[in-house]
Amino acid sequence: MFTAQRLHDLNQPLQAEHQLQFQYLADLLSRRNQDAQEVVRELVKFQVAIPSWALGTGGTRFGRYPLGGEPRNLEEKLGDVGLLHQLNGSSNSISLHIPWDIPQDIAGLEQLQQEYGLVIDSVNSNTFQDQKDQAFSYKFGSLSHTEPAVRQQAIQHNIDCINYGRQLGARTLTVWLADGSNFPGQQHLRRAYLRTQESLAAIYEAMPSDWQMLIEYKPYEPHFYSMVIPDWGTSYSLCQSLGKNANVLVDLGHHLPNTNIEQIVGRLQQFGRLGGFHFNGSMYGDDDLTTGSIKPFQLFLIFNELVDAARDTSVTNPLVAYMIDASHNTKDPLEDLLQSVENILGAYAKALLVDREALHEAQETNDVARAEELLRDAFLLDVRPLVAEAYRQSGGALKPVQAYRAAGVREQLIQQRGKRSVSTGL
Amino acid sequence: MFTAQRLHDLNQPLQAEHQLQFQYLADLLSRRNQDAQEVVRELVKFQVAIPSWALGTGGTRFGRYPLGGEPRNLEEKLGDVGLLHQLNGSSNSISLHIPWDIPQDIAGLEQLQQEYGLVIDSVNSNTFQDQKDQAFSYKFGSLSHTEPAVRQQAIQHNIDCINYGRQLGARTLTVWLADGSNFPGQQHLRRAYLRTQESLAAIYEAMPSDWQMLIEYKPYEPHFYSMVIPDWGTSYSLCQSLGKNANVLVDLGHHLPNTNIEQIVGRLQQFGRLGGFHFNGSMYGDDDLTTGSIKPFQLFLIFNELVDAARDTSVTNPLVAYMIDASHNTKDPLEDLLQSVENILGAYAKALLVDREALHEAQETNDVARAEELLRDAFLLDVRPLVAEAYRQSGGALKPVQAYRAAGVREQLIQQRGKRSVSTGL
Amino acid sequence: MFTAQRLHDLNQPLQAEHQLQFQYLADLLSRRNQDAQEVVRELVKFQVAIPSWALGTGGTRFGRYPLGGEPRNLEEKLGDVGLLHQLNGSSNSISLHIPWDIPQDIAGLEQLQQEYGLVIDSVNSNTFQDQKDQAFSYKFGSLSHTEPAVRQQAIQHNIDCINYGRQLGARTLTVWLADGSNFPGQQHLRRAYLRTQESLAAIYEAMPSDWQMLIEYKPYEPHFYSMVIPDWGTSYSLCQSLGKNANVLVDLGHHLPNTNIEQIVGRLQQFGRLGGFHFNGSMYGDDDLTTGSIKPFQLFLIFNELVDAARDTSVTNPLVAYMIDASHNTKDPLEDLLQSVENILGAYAKALLVDREALHEAQETNDVARAEELLRDAFLLDVRPLVAEAYRQSGGALKPVQAYRAAGVREQLIQQRGKRSVSTGL
Amino acid sequence: MFTAQRLHDLNQPLQAEHQLQFQYLADLLSRRNQDAQEVVRELVKFQVAIPSWALGTGGTRFGRYPLGGEPRNLEEKLGDVGLLHQLNGSSNSISLHIPWDIPQDIAGLEQLQQEYGLVIDSVNSNTFQDQKDQAFSYKFGSLSHTEPAVRQQAIQHNIDCINYGRQLGARTLTVWLADGSNFPGQQHLRRAYLRTQESLAAIYEAMPSDWQMLIEYKPYEPHFYSMVIPDWGTSYSLCQSLGKNANVLVDLGHHLPNTNIEQIVGRLQQFGRLGGFHFNGSMYGDDDLTTGSIKPFQLFLIFNELVDAARDTSVTNPLVAYMIDASHNTKDPLEDLLQSVENILGAYAKALLVDREALHEAQETNDVARAEELLRDAFLLDVRPLVAEAYRQSGGALKPVQAYRAAGVREQLIQQRGKRSVSTGL
Repeated sequence: MFTAQRLHDLNQPLQAEHQLQFQYLADLLSRRNQDAQEVVRELVKFQVAIPSWALGTGGTRFGRYPLGGEPRNLEEKLGDVGLLHQLNGSSNSISLHIPWDIPQDIAGLEQLQQEYGLVIDSVNSNTFQDQKDQAFSYKFGSLSHTEPAVRQQAIQHNIDCINYGRQLGARTLTVWLADGSNFPGQQHLRRAYLRTQESLAAIYEAMPSDWQMLIEYKPYEPHFYSMVIPDWGTSYSLCQSLGKNANVLVDLGHHLPNTNIEQIVGRLQQFGRLGGFHFNGSMYGDDDLTTGSIKPFQLFLIFNELVDAARDTSVTNPLVAYMIDASHNTKDPLEDLLQSVENILGAYAKALLVDREALHEAQETNDVARAEELLRDAFLLDVRPLVAEAYRQSGGALKPVQAYRAAGVREQLIQQRGKRSVSTGL
Repeated sequence: MFTAQRLHDLNQPLQAEHQLQFQYLADLLSRRNQDAQEVVRELVKFQVAIPSWALGTGGTRFGRYPLGGEPRNLEEKLGDVGLLHQLNGSSNSISLHIPWDIPQDIAGLEQLQQEYGLVIDSVNSNTFQDQKDQAFSYKFGSLSHTEPAVRQQAIQHNIDCINYGRQLGARTLTVWLADGSNFPGQQHLRRAYLRTQESLAAIYEAMPSDWQMLIEYKPYEPHFYSMVIPDWGTSYSLCQSLGKNANVLVDLGHHLPNTNIEQIVGRLQQFGRLGGFHFNGSMYGDDDLTTGSIKPFQLFLIFNELVDAARDTSVTNPLVAYMIDASHNTKDPLEDLLQSVENILGAYAKALLVDREALHEAQETNDVARAEELLRDAFLLDVRPLVAEAYRQSGGALKPVQAYRAAGVREQLIQQRGKRSVSTGL
Repeated sequence: MFTAQRLHDLNQPLQAEHQLQFQYLADLLSRRNQDAQEVVRELVKFQVAIPSWALGTGGTRFGRYPLGGEPRNLEEKLGDVGLLHQLNGSSNSISLHIPWDIPQDIAGLEQLQQEYGLVIDSVNSNTFQDQKDQAFSYKFGSLSHTEPAVRQQAIQHNIDCINYGRQLGARTLTVWLADGSNFPGQQHLRRAYLRTQESLAAIYEAMPSDWQMLIEYKPYEPHFYSMVIPDWGTSYSLCQSLGKNANVLVDLGHHLPNTNIEQIVGRLQQFGRLGGFHFNGSMYGDDDLTTGSIKPFQLFLIFNELVDAARDTSVTNPLVAYMIDASHNTKDPLEDLLQSVENILGAYAKALLVDREALHEAQETNDVARAEELLRDAFLLDVRPLVAEAYRQSGGALKPVQAYRAAGVREQLIQQRGKRSVSTGL
Repeated sequence: MFTAQRLHDLNQPLQAEHQLQFQYLADLLSRRNQDAQEVVRELVKFQVAIPSWALGTGGTRFGRYPLGGEPRNLEEKLGDVGLLHQLNGSSNSISLHIPWDIPQDIAGLEQLQQEYGLVIDSVNSNTFQDQKDQAFSYKFGSLSHTEPAVRQQAIQHNIDCINYGRQLGARTLTVWLADGSNFPGQQHLRRAYLRTQESLAAIYEAMPSDWQMLIEYKPYEPHFYSMVIPDWGTSYSLCQSLGKNANVLVDLGHHLPNTNIEQIVGRLQQFGRLGGFHFNGSMYGDDDLTTGSIKPFQLFLIFNELVDAARDTSVTNPLVAYMIDASHNTKDPLEDLLQSVENILGAYAKALLVDREALHEAQETNDVARAEELLRDAFLLDVRPLVAEAYRQSGGALKPVQAYRAAGVREQLIQQRGKRSVSTGL
């Protein structure tokens, strides 16, 4: 949608100020023996997947307020992600949700992927909703259901997801199991776990050996007494029983109040079981807000763990899948996603600028105030010039949201797709 | 739906055992100088309103699993509540939700009310969803919206609610204001409050002097950074500014983790500002589960405050409106409501059996263990025979859920209304 | 302190009423095909350990209000527990805390144990406080400390605990590791875990093969950013790495808000890793209140899991150690402990009365309302006559707190030990 | 302790880099039409009171780890605060705690105040601990106690506090009422409130008309079932009943999980009832960590409310008292306080740099993403050069913690006061 010339034109008036700010920061970092360009190179490489289901307006059970121009099919979803990737150079992949994104025209999709420079990142199964013409209902569970036939249907759905994903080059299956119970007594807690374990093993068995399965956890919602996989400990135990290609997925909104998420991230890396992230922002629960909008310091601390582990050769964690999982009720979804990616890149940049050697020394000598200051020092830096420079070097916009608005993208999408187009999904 | 004969027949096989249990408990209480029949009389008088929107299957943003036979219009909703009232004699009123329950045939409805022995309890306005053909959207708020025209529309909707209610004999307007913001900065917190205050004043002004306005509070959802009325303090301050006919409504699910709700109930009664309840069960947030299903002791402690205040002549609180507000995803809605009412009656019965004189003395002398034991003593009593006796004396079923099932009510409703009938509402 | 005659005399005036209530309940249960005497037999067998540190007044950082008569040494602590055991027949063991309870006169202690019918249940190490003349401070950690010498000191302390315990016949070492950090950056999260793992392995190595190590977890306090062992997942992973004699200890107050603890209990039993409990009551955090005083339904649901697993031959969990861990600021500690044991026995009795066959069927057929009702049915029973009968059959008091008061125990203890005696401990 | 020359020498090697950074930021702000010097002027004026009780090592109920050199009397406490004020020019006042800080030598203290440029900010009463030789115990409450004599003692203590404060020029009484209950039933919730109200009225009556009373709230600890003043609504209602010189004090750690504190701040300002702050950092509850160490964005959002209200002429809130209330277990208390003040100044500087006109416009037009970006834009700025410049202009150190360490202050204090000196207080 954006030609290189168009982006160049949009960047032109901002270029001088950007150059000034970037140069100042590069000099400042250089005086600290840090290399701005090296950080920029890392940012340019960093990619975070966009969820197909976040391209349309989300909402709560109380209502939705669509704004129009939403993608009506998988092809248009690729188009939207391609557009984001043009703007920020950091969104080269897309997470699919089956059955919302069942591919029809594989060849056409492959061509679109090439055109936009996109890959398919992960396939997400959905056994938390009943689909039309489905033989059995998931009202009382899917992979954990008491009836073998329902479990088999849910297993098969996951295998179908793998097959769709293989056609498009994906190599990750993400399982968020919404099974649980609303009342004490409703579900036999141990048996529900065992049935789930058995079902996951059947899916794992059917998974190609170069795939990985990511297992999410969530303490509540859609069930409000118990969830079969409520915490990282349960996900971890399931992964242990499945094999080395099963790993834990951390969704930032899936924790009880006050959880220290960065510590969970550290633990999982140490166990070699951190499979991936669903980034979003949370104040109360699974709020699915813009990543970094509510707890920017937490986001930085998470990236601090990631960078620290990445530099520690004793850590043998697999490649981590970075994905956004958000829902937008009041913002333009595409603006929200651009903001999320920007906040993620900022947190990553800051984590890269932590003086780890000095921090290590302060930690080893229990110099509490100094250790804290060393972390804060990186957090307090204004790294926006580094992020903007990464955009620029990727051929994107210095200020993606501003460019998106200036180019009137939403208006064009509404014209093309209509005011009432509603993206498939929740 | 149930004739007196039918209920008598259903009770018949349970009668002997009931009589045995009731007599035992009456004797036991009598030895404690407590009068079982007096408690039963209180229970018979106690009525809790059924929300029209809880007669159909609810759900979360992730999916719903309707079970069929749901009421398709206001007349059928009255029918369902009438049926519940036949079974338990404690559900003689219904809360309406506008626009889901706009009455069409007033005379017909009045006749139905008489037939079922029902009254309309409260009218609930809805400015958290956009209705078709609505001039302005509530995407960015209603009574707190920045635009006067949107506020005016929302004010007018509330006035319409009052007018609908007047036609049906209601005298309470319940305002749950879902306005809020998802991101820091989105909303000017003070101005949003002031606009809300002004809007509520306009509605209050239009309200007949024998009506009361109930103002709910809720800390989050549908908005996840701030809600305009997040806590009892805000509701209370608004009521103070409006006048004596505005009071606070406490929804058991609308609190932050670990809140001592019974203390809030006590405070509001003391201030003469407790207007009513939305009863439901909650483990995490606004889970809308069966009342008493998760925290039965808390429910008892709330009733303990209510009974205590009712017997304290220095407390000048207005009549409290008892209403259920729940949502049912996995249970039959009518069974859920019968259970909720039963749990409420049980908590009330236990609260009536607290030895308040002894408790008072233990409190005044700081005999902690004894004060606690006195409360627990009432809580630990098995008061089910009292509740069953109240059902019986009201002409209902000794075991309402059992009778409901034995009579095959749901199957009949499905036959009448269809497998796919979906109740209006969320 | 109580002779059999004295207890008999105290029971005498209550006996007739007790007999009446017990007989009624036994008849009622019999009509349900349940055997009251069988439940009583289980209750008589059930023993819960009393923590030596809960025999004196506890408190918060803000102050303490000792009431006098507190045990001044280990011998007097045994005396207090012996007295509790006389009263309720359910407290035949004591948990020690080293260094607060270092035994001096082993032979004398053994004799006291025999006299009171007590065993030593578990030895608890303490590396969260600095003891006078200790070579290294635990200010910055113990088993996780950055300095090998500090870790070695903490390891040795745990080994000392084992040795003290062996002298007294204990076979359990309980490790609550208070290590953690107050600020982001203070502690390297992965390295702290690895050092802890290594230290625990050294202790485990030194532990006799017929001992078990219980590893507690706690999300916060005394550290407020991170704890090295914050959750069951971390405890579990450590146990896995240590061996089959290391198991997880669940303290009811050591969870984040809204945690479903009974599910954790179920998981751990399923993994064969539930080692024991620290029972107490909690509204906000580690409040250390009387067990069952705040969330009696939760306590029942926990026992429901325990009973369910005990009857499931596929579960191969080791024997679970039942211990109280509480702190008393406003109640007489001994009254508090009597109440705690009573609440525990009540929850256990109710769990024994769940109709598991019917529940199983309801669960398998997803009859949600019925499954819930089956659990609630047991919870709502007034089982106090069963608990009292168990007391009676054990030779204790029908109403232990009442007997304790009637006998003027506290007054005598104050006379013997003084108004200002302060128990060792926190 | 620091001469101007000493501070100059310590600043000297940092001066060039500071100048470079400050000039760059001033230029950048100038291009945004913002005036760095104006912000610096505001920062120079800003003063936050240091609590006398935070000058020594704090701790939890589990243990303390004093580091030595703690002030042994009020004079030495003034000395410590004087030293902080020399270093940062922002700590010109001290909060006293009675009875820990009962002044003996008024004239001497006045001279010290003059010497150090300090004022006494607020006097804090303490009725949560029993003092030696106190007639009645506060075990079961103070201002809310059931016994009039105990209440009278607590009232008198507060009046004594006022009198001590008058001698030293204070004009604020801070009341943190720790009264509450640990068990349901222990306290009659309504009567406890009424007794408290009456007691506070007696104190208010005795307070000079140019004083203000600040009423804190706290949801739990030291009591774990109910606190008499648990939330802002209760504080507010008490202030309303007392008069215009009673206002609410917000302690950042005194809230339930997930509370939106900045909204409470906004509400109270709007009601003209925000009296002051106790700043500290919190992850779980009343953790009393370094201000801004855990949730820096929240601290900024609070200052955003403060600055916004300060510029709004329709807001008629009294002067807000800014105080720190923290406890230090692992850090040097003085370093912790320097960090806290620095974080507060940083948050204030950022709040001053919000483009309020643009924000207002974005809010009024519901441009959500832009409104959010405008706030974040200020938050992401690295304002440390502004804070350092404020220190410099106040005659302090460019980097106070660094200067404190370079000067070997703690070592000197230990030499003067001893390794085992323990500050009065908790």
